[in-house]
Amino acid sequence: MALIVHKYGGTSMGSTERIRNVAKRVAKWARAGHQMVVVPSAMSGETNRLLGLAKELSPKQTSSALLRELDMIAATGEQVSVGLLAIALQAEGMEAISYTGWQVPVQTDSAYTKARIQSIDDARVRADLEAGRVVIITGFQGIDSDGHITTLGRGGSDTSAVAVAAAMKAHECLIYTDVDGVYTTDPRIVAEARRLSTISFEEMLEMASLGSKVLQIRSVEFAGKYRVPLRVLSSFTPWDIDIEEEASSGTLITFEEDEKMEQAVVSGIAFNRDEAKITVMGVPDKPGIAYQILGAVAEANIDVDVIIQNVSHDGKTDFSFTVHRNDYQRTIDLLQNQVAPSTGATQVLGDTKICKVSIVGIGMRSHAGVASKMFRALSDEGINIQMITTSEIKTSVVIDEKYMELAVRALHRAFELDQEPVAA
Amino acid sequence: MALIVHKYGGTSMGSTERIRNVAKRVAKWARAGHQMVVVPSAMSGETNRLLGLAKELSPKQTSSALLRELDMIAATGEQVSVGLLAIALQAEGMEAISYTGWQVPVQTDSAYTKARIQSIDDARVRADLEAGRVVIITGFQGIDSDGHITTLGRGGSDTSAVAVAAAMKAHECLIYTDVDGVYTTDPRIVAEARRLSTISFEEMLEMASLGSKVLQIRSVEFAGKYRVPLRVLSSFTPWDIDIEEEASSGTLITFEEDEKMEQAVVSGIAFNRDEAKITVMGVPDKPGIAYQILGAVAEANIDVDVIIQNVSHDGKTDFSFTVHRNDYQRTIDLLQNQVAPSTGATQVLGDTKICKVSIVGIGMRSHAGVASKMFRALSDEGINIQMITTSEIKTSVVIDEKYMELAVRALHRAFELDQEPVAA
Repeated sequence: MALIVHKYGGTSMGSTERIRNVAKRVAKWARAGHQMVVVPSAMSGETNRLLGLAKELSPKQTSSALLRELDMIAATGEQVSVGLLAIALQAEGMEAISYTGWQVPVQTDSAYTKARIQSIDDARVRADLEAGRVVIITGFQGIDSDGHITTLGRGGSDTSAVAVAAAMKAHECLIYTDVDGVYTTDPRIVAEARRLSTISFEEMLEMASLGSKVLQIRSVEFAGKYRVPLRVLSSFTPWDIDIEEEASSGTLITFEEDEKMEQAVVSGIAFNRDEAKITVMGVPDKPGIAYQILGAVAEANIDVDVIIQNVSHDGKTDFSFTVHRNDYQRTIDLLQNQVAPSTGATQVLGDTKICKVSIVGIGMRSHAGVASKMFRALSDEGINIQMITTSEIKTSVVIDEKYMELAVRALHRAFELDQEPVAA
Repeated sequence: MALIVHKYGGTSMGSTERIRNVAKRVAKWARAGHQMVVVPSAMSGETNRLLGLAKELSPKQTSSALLRELDMIAATGEQVSVGLLAIALQAEGMEAISYTGWQVPVQTDSAYTKARIQSIDDARVRADLEAGRVVIITGFQGIDSDGHITTLGRGGSDTSAVAVAAAMKAHECLIYTDVDGVYTTDPRIVAEARRLSTISFEEMLEMASLGSKVLQIRSVEFAGKYRVPLRVLSSFTPWDIDIEEEASSGTLITFEEDEKMEQAVVSGIAFNRDEAKITVMGVPDKPGIAYQILGAVAEANIDVDVIIQNVSHDGKTDFSFTVHRNDYQRTIDLLQNQVAPSTGATQVLGDTKICKVSIVGIGMRSHAGVASKMFRALSDEGINIQMITTSEIKTSVVIDEKYMELAVRALHRAFELDQEPVAA
């Protein structure tokens, strides 16, 4: 008997008929002797509907008071889901009880709409499991130290599920989603993309952070930090397929690099076009300038991704970085109104028509020449590289958005990702 | 500067445009110097939508576990409303903050779907008011001593508003609704029905409990217990009408029988067809028999209204009472399966085609012959009376449902309710 956490996305919860199927699947696992905790998302479309209503009424100025109310509203989507799933499980003859984030409680900081989980008290949930109940917990949300409702931001239910699995030392956390695993890249872009049966935690972290939409990055971080075995699998298989078959399907995110792991140099190609590039021109090249620029951005709670500082000319340098497109206008305003005047920058330039394409693989650690192979493949296609960043297991380039698909296909081919790798 | 509680129904909250109008109205009151607490209902249709989803998934058997989940789901309707209204007020330039029942907290017992408020801690709300904020509180819901979400049942937002007004010793609680006050009877049935500018708390209590849908009965009980001045007024007046005019519109429910009060013998005619009649035939006429029958019904959490025990024949008697039609089948099952075998009753009969019509008035206390005037008016119309109950300020009859409108019109005419009463 193991403690298992299931997470179901909004599509799986999209109608009462689908919720009934989720209940049947969970009941199958519970009847097989497992202690079950389930974290469902809001019914698909519900969060957008709620935030759409809020947007119609919102003041122009964003304030903490406004963000607090957005969380108050958005959190209800998951609350409805957990109640409905509990009822559906009861109809299956199971004992089931639902909890909101504040009831567990899931403690978070107070960063409304993008809060971070700080701790989870599992006493209440554990008591219900011991009493033979299936426990259903709202994803995406928690409560701060002053008793305000917070949400974790889009995709936050993945993080909730992993955090619960970590707190309860679950045997495995199964993320049911509308894809059947993690692929070498997005199959909608490269038809030859191949499903990976395992991927290392570090690779998954890079894939997630680089725009592979399968898992929310913070959920992968959590899984890594607490070593929660995480499996991504399809919610579209019939609920009554053999439980052993189901338990070994999808992609397992592992922490050991054992022989069973695939030994490709590059495991996958990630990409995103959610970012925008910003360049602050002509700032004095002196100590502290990076902090002066990025400190202000960080204070405004804007996440920065790629950062590049060019070599200086005449004591002046250009400073470039990328932010999420949603934060683009806010960042530009901030730089023009506050940072440029105080730093003496000559100009602030922005470009939203960019994308980032990355190759990811643990094998890059021990193989030289991987990055240059990437640059040549792009060059062969006539694609100009605007920015480059590298880490131990990934290399990313920022290019013109219109070349994204072309670049991904070229790299997938260059690194022979359509073929099963040979053991090293 | 006074502390004022506003309560808005689902129709007033039915769209973002209407919510914006509510915000403008509340802002007008706040700008006039009042400390404002607002209790809005769920957007119209929302509670039905949510419970409809739940019903599609529900097991056949009702259990406490199921009712708990229904409350979990239904409570979200008001949570969305308070968030949206807070945002709309912020857009009006006001500082506003919303709270759910559990955040205030509003403590209730654990009777899911029909919980009762036990206490309200006003410290948090008062601190926000002192800080110049408009405070918006979810109606309809609370939290029990184990931290479970509870709801107060349909119309519970009225009760929440009055309870909050009582806890905070508000100057007045204004219930904005889709009628412009309390009428002598339903104007849809009697065109000559007249709005009362004041009504005594006791009369209002009878009107509410007898089926006048203007206010939920528990809200009137609360208002009476804590002497909260309560005003029912229209939410359809333009938000920018003169505040003095608005503050004296509608119907005020008062606690003093002063000269200003209207001196009619009968103030209004109430009616409902929500009840069903049940008769347990041939039970032994011995001490304890009423308890044996009604105790079992009360244990099943079924409210009983009119109760009549007929005179006995041969040591046997017939015992009749009415319950809400929603509880009818459950009551019949209970009586046939449990009560009849243990009491030796010969038969359990039921009739759902009944209605109750009542005349209400403080003046009945000091005027004889009011009931007989009622019976004659009904007799003149050829309407047979099935059950009669009386209290100090009301007389009710149960009649065939098909005569309801006829009876109400006849009584409205007989007691000259279409005319302003003359001072006594």
